[in-house]
Amino acid sequence: MTHSQTTLHPIWDEFPAIRKELQGVLDRIEANLDANDADVEAALIDMFSHGGKLLRPAFTILIGRFFPAEREPLLNLAATVEMLHTASLVHDDIIDDSPKRRHAESVQSRFGKDVAAYTGDYLFAVTFRTLADNTNDINVVRMATRYLERILSGELTQRTNHYKRDMTIANYEDQIAGKTAALFVLAANLGIAASHTPKDFADLATDFAYNVGMAFQILDDLLDYSADSTTLGKPTLNDVREGVYSAPLIIAMQDNEEIQALLAKGATISDDEAVHLGELVRASGALAIAEDMAVAYTNTALERLSDMPEHESKHILLSISQTLLTRND
Amino acid sequence: MTHSQTTLHPIWDEFPAIRKELQGVLDRIEANLDANDADVEAALIDMFSHGGKLLRPAFTILIGRFFPAEREPLLNLAATVEMLHTASLVHDDIIDDSPKRRHAESVQSRFGKDVAAYTGDYLFAVTFRTLADNTNDINVVRMATRYLERILSGELTQRTNHYKRDMTIANYEDQIAGKTAALFVLAANLGIAASHTPKDFADLATDFAYNVGMAFQILDDLLDYSADSTTLGKPTLNDVREGVYSAPLIIAMQDNEEIQALLAKGATISDDEAVHLGELVRASGALAIAEDMAVAYTNTALERLSDMPEHESKHILLSISQTLLTRND
Repeated sequence: MTHSQTTLHPIWDEFPAIRKELQGVLDRIEANLDANDADVEAALIDMFSHGGKLLRPAFTILIGRFFPAEREPLLNLAATVEMLHTASLVHDDIIDDSPKRRHAESVQSRFGKDVAAYTGDYLFAVTFRTLADNTNDINVVRMATRYLERILSGELTQRTNHYKRDMTIANYEDQIAGKTAALFVLAANLGIAASHTPKDFADLATDFAYNVGMAFQILDDLLDYSADSTTLGKPTLNDVREGVYSAPLIIAMQDNEEIQALLAKGATISDDEAVHLGELVRASGALAIAEDMAVAYTNTALERLSDMPEHESKHILLSISQTLLTRND
Repeated sequence: MTHSQTTLHPIWDEFPAIRKELQGVLDRIEANLDANDADVEAALIDMFSHGGKLLRPAFTILIGRFFPAEREPLLNLAATVEMLHTASLVHDDIIDDSPKRRHAESVQSRFGKDVAAYTGDYLFAVTFRTLADNTNDINVVRMATRYLERILSGELTQRTNHYKRDMTIANYEDQIAGKTAALFVLAANLGIAASHTPKDFADLATDFAYNVGMAFQILDDLLDYSADSTTLGKPTLNDVREGVYSAPLIIAMQDNEEIQALLAKGATISDDEAVHLGELVRASGALAIAEDMAVAYTNTALERLSDMPEHESKHILLSISQTLLTRND
């Protein structure tokens, strides 16, 4: 695959060394892909050229740089986590019938669900090939397969929790621990695998990545409800219609008969009713509670970070964690 | 996952030792699956309890038994090839919108495409976990990822060849080498991996599996056209409508203006026209040519088999190859 025109996210502008490595990750992803089908190639170029923030491969690289690591395996292992993430996004869009992804048309919308199914499967295959080619330790492969299962099981938990009006915050935390935090933890562990870190550092980095992942997802879900527009955004409306409930709604719906009655309408809730639902969530005080949850995870993450040894990576991780966990877009 | 009621195919009735091992493979598949979602569990039980002939895990076991192998890894590696095969079938059914699979309703038809997408992804994850857990050799994982890519690239080649009215038999052979033969070769190589065979045996077994796979797919495609009914079967009609052309049609359509004109109608070909297409294919002499192709692959397979050392497996492989490659259902 060649000729993707990738623009790296401005979050990396102030860290040129990492920016360069992330460009190296994208180059390696491209070099690894040869899908044998014009539409799948186009779909892949599409996905990786709207490459988002590349947070997960950045975690692999930043964690991996604390202790001496060989550059080539480190960048390739960072590539695997981004490919895995992208594979799951492509398949999520089939499941959600989502028209948009990364501010562009989704693969399934542009090329059809057959191309989306193949593209995701092909990325899974390349992910595992790249993983196995860049470690000599079978335990690294074993570790990665367990996190992949955990990620998929998180997605399945989300499915099981559909329309669950007695869903608890504990259910929600279990769900996002799988579908979001496990991928951050995998990213950190691939950095650890590439650099033979001491055990105590590995534990700190794993715990840091978990807490960042949790805070990141809660904030993402919070932003859906706290937008200063007076309506729920379209994606959130779709989530509610499809029975996907996130922290603000879960907190607000406990013992709230009006919200329960609206949710009981299931997929038939009208646009006006959904707007009203958003108002009820905001009026309930749930946003402050969800924000406290995110702050608690963020604080734990920053504590783990502060216990790490002095290193350039530590300062960069601190800076991007603060940027990410206080974002409002 | 528990309580599947599996009936093994009668092809194994005369080989009780292998029958027992295949039951062991199914037991290990079930023990490995814990999908965390009732529908996905039900979908998996559905797939594995209509388990087909289990040819691919049988190849792993039979090839693996020529030389001393540890039973537990051998059965687990055999399980991985069946799980991989099943994952690709589940995703194929999303792509094809297929209502049937293994004489039962397909996963996507019964549970929806979201369950089908997750079920396939989950099986890919369990496949790689089981693979990595049952070898200490990273090269076995590397080998398996390359065959998985080859299988997917064969499926993509099939997609690229859709509606290709100048498609050649070489295009077709390349396509089935990937989508069918590569999985048989992977099955054989997992048996080889579990038993540390000498290199010359490994080459024979690989070549045997490739030729069986090629003959198997050509015969499968031949049966679609040679049925004594006067109509194309419904699946074949769907294939033609979707632009999937197999050996009999590819042979017949070369320089045949009437067939070319019917195919030019693409997805709009009527039922009556498709029936007529089937008659034209049968009248063209293409079936005999396709049969000669299958016979040539079968003969090569049997030659490779005859060069293998004396072993109970050799006689069983001969018997099932003959049964498979002369089947008419």
